[in-house]
Amino acid sequence: MIPSRKLFTRKLDFIHGSVELSHGGGGRAMAQLIEEVFLTAFDNEWLRTQDDCAQFNVPAGRLVMATDSHVVSPLFFPGGDIGCLSVHGTINDVAMAGAQPLYLAASFILEEGFPLADLQRIVDSMAQAARQAGVPIVTGDTKVVERGKGDGVFITTTGVGVVPPGVNISASRAQPGDAILLSGSLGDHGMAVMAQRENLSFDAPIVSDTAALHGLVATMVAVAPELHCLRDPTRGGLGSALNEIAQQSGVGMRLHEAAIPVHEPVRALCEFLGLDPLYVANEGKLLAICPAECADPLLAVMRAHSLGQEAAIIGSVVTDAHGFVEMETVFGGRRLVDWLSGEQLPRIC
Amino acid sequence: MIPSRKLFTRKLDFIHGSVELSHGGGGRAMAQLIEEVFLTAFDNEWLRTQDDCAQFNVPAGRLVMATDSHVVSPLFFPGGDIGCLSVHGTINDVAMAGAQPLYLAASFILEEGFPLADLQRIVDSMAQAARQAGVPIVTGDTKVVERGKGDGVFITTTGVGVVPPGVNISASRAQPGDAILLSGSLGDHGMAVMAQRENLSFDAPIVSDTAALHGLVATMVAVAPELHCLRDPTRGGLGSALNEIAQQSGVGMRLHEAAIPVHEPVRALCEFLGLDPLYVANEGKLLAICPAECADPLLAVMRAHSLGQEAAIIGSVVTDAHGFVEMETVFGGRRLVDWLSGEQLPRIC
Repeated sequence: MIPSRKLFTRKLDFIHGSVELSHGGGGRAMAQLIEEVFLTAFDNEWLRTQDDCAQFNVPAGRLVMATDSHVVSPLFFPGGDIGCLSVHGTINDVAMAGAQPLYLAASFILEEGFPLADLQRIVDSMAQAARQAGVPIVTGDTKVVERGKGDGVFITTTGVGVVPPGVNISASRAQPGDAILLSGSLGDHGMAVMAQRENLSFDAPIVSDTAALHGLVATMVAVAPELHCLRDPTRGGLGSALNEIAQQSGVGMRLHEAAIPVHEPVRALCEFLGLDPLYVANEGKLLAICPAECADPLLAVMRAHSLGQEAAIIGSVVTDAHGFVEMETVFGGRRLVDWLSGEQLPRIC
Repeated sequence: MIPSRKLFTRKLDFIHGSVELSHGGGGRAMAQLIEEVFLTAFDNEWLRTQDDCAQFNVPAGRLVMATDSHVVSPLFFPGGDIGCLSVHGTINDVAMAGAQPLYLAASFILEEGFPLADLQRIVDSMAQAARQAGVPIVTGDTKVVERGKGDGVFITTTGVGVVPPGVNISASRAQPGDAILLSGSLGDHGMAVMAQRENLSFDAPIVSDTAALHGLVATMVAVAPELHCLRDPTRGGLGSALNEIAQQSGVGMRLHEAAIPVHEPVRALCEFLGLDPLYVANEGKLLAICPAECADPLLAVMRAHSLGQEAAIIGSVVTDAHGFVEMETVFGGRRLVDWLSGEQLPRIC
């Protein structure tokens, strides 16, 4: 699908140009978009074959596959953009199985009229995130929809990874007595996007925590291969993630509010908007559930990692036939941390 | 993520209900949509774990990964819909490496207000296509965008498969002297969608050829493991697919128009709309390029398969530094089959 340069009479105009329907048509214009935007940014041996798929060797064993569509609005926000978010999000879903992410696929749904300059900025951000993570984008697809039938760009990424022998992590494995650990502060991503969306400005802007967590996970799995659960609390936040695990494992949870880190600007903006940080999306945090005796060594390696410096033990798993998640508040009371009802923040990832 | 039934006070209303923003919010409403729509239809051991990823064992060897976003409009057309199309399309991309497709991931971008009845019909069609193909949908994602920011539903599917030892199929392997085979008639899918879109009706309606081709490919690989190239001529049609291969392999092609099957209603509609069937999308056809001595046995197994009954040898690969694809017309002349310029049919897949 790489036509020789002579096929294109002009280079794409990355200053004034925009996406046209022909860029999704399967002909010359699409080949040019693929070559000048995607191949240039993601450049690797798999994409250079220009087949409709990527081929790679894997060892025998357990593989993981995860997929996520990204529709965040606005596309650019403090600390990131839809591009790096789409790389981090899927790497994290793969990593939450304790796996080493190997390869990514990326599929773009572009709206006619979307500026090529914005597309290039997003694709460059993806390329940088993929390179930093060491996980190449090896295959992809591009579709274009008419003006008014999309919203700039939607990106669906899919990842595959390999699970180390002896690791068996699943949301159904939490057991009474287990400790619950959180890798850092809550709500930074969701509030960074909301502040951008609502044009709120602060002395110290809130910055998304979007990051690839597979390096942190690898250090955790190395020290505690008997880890029971890992989950990145994205949409729905920590509250929803814990309720899901409680439901799937048939257990209850007891949290200590005082132990849960929330940065002050996030707490203030949440209060202003009437939101609970427990339900706000994170894109660079994980929660881990492990046997009590692993909690301290696990906490130590988490805090030693740049993405886990504020890690904390935030509660424990208890026997509870109702699967309730309860929290001891900073005032010494108790409250139920229920499932999120309704839509708190649409299009946050 | 499967809350017990008590979490949902009412079942979803599949008659009058529609997609709401809360169905993408990561809370209770999303859990209900996943349980009552996706889990019910796709039901399998991987989805039942309700982790954000799927885990499965693979043998050591060469894996294939392919991804495709589907944005076809209208969503329902004679012979299929976006659901089965999204399953067939990605299975076919995996199969074009000569691989056995193993698992699929599916990610949905839904527009607020989309009827739940239509969603269920589409998901049921996907489930049936996946079951018939023997390729389970093992993981997925759902996002919802506001009314007017999408177009009903977009579906991105990603597939992984395993390449049999000794098979090495790529668009860069066509060699002068190779034969070019086509598995059946051109243009059925594209013209079925166009007829539906333009509200054209015929005595004998044109029906999309959407189908999973991995079974056909398996029989072909078994009889001719030395196959050089396989490609499903979707967007851009046969003309674009052959130009891509010619470019990547650094060869030319010579086609015989009289040998290329096009059904009469498709030919008539193409003429009416001013389109060339060589550039119209197919979703259940493949072209194969193989050493000349394999052509006859390959043709025989293709014709013996239900999806290759009209298979034909349509031309041959030649030495050509320009990478031109030329066709001997039915009138005995010659014409260049150039790259498709511009957008012929937007949103055809």
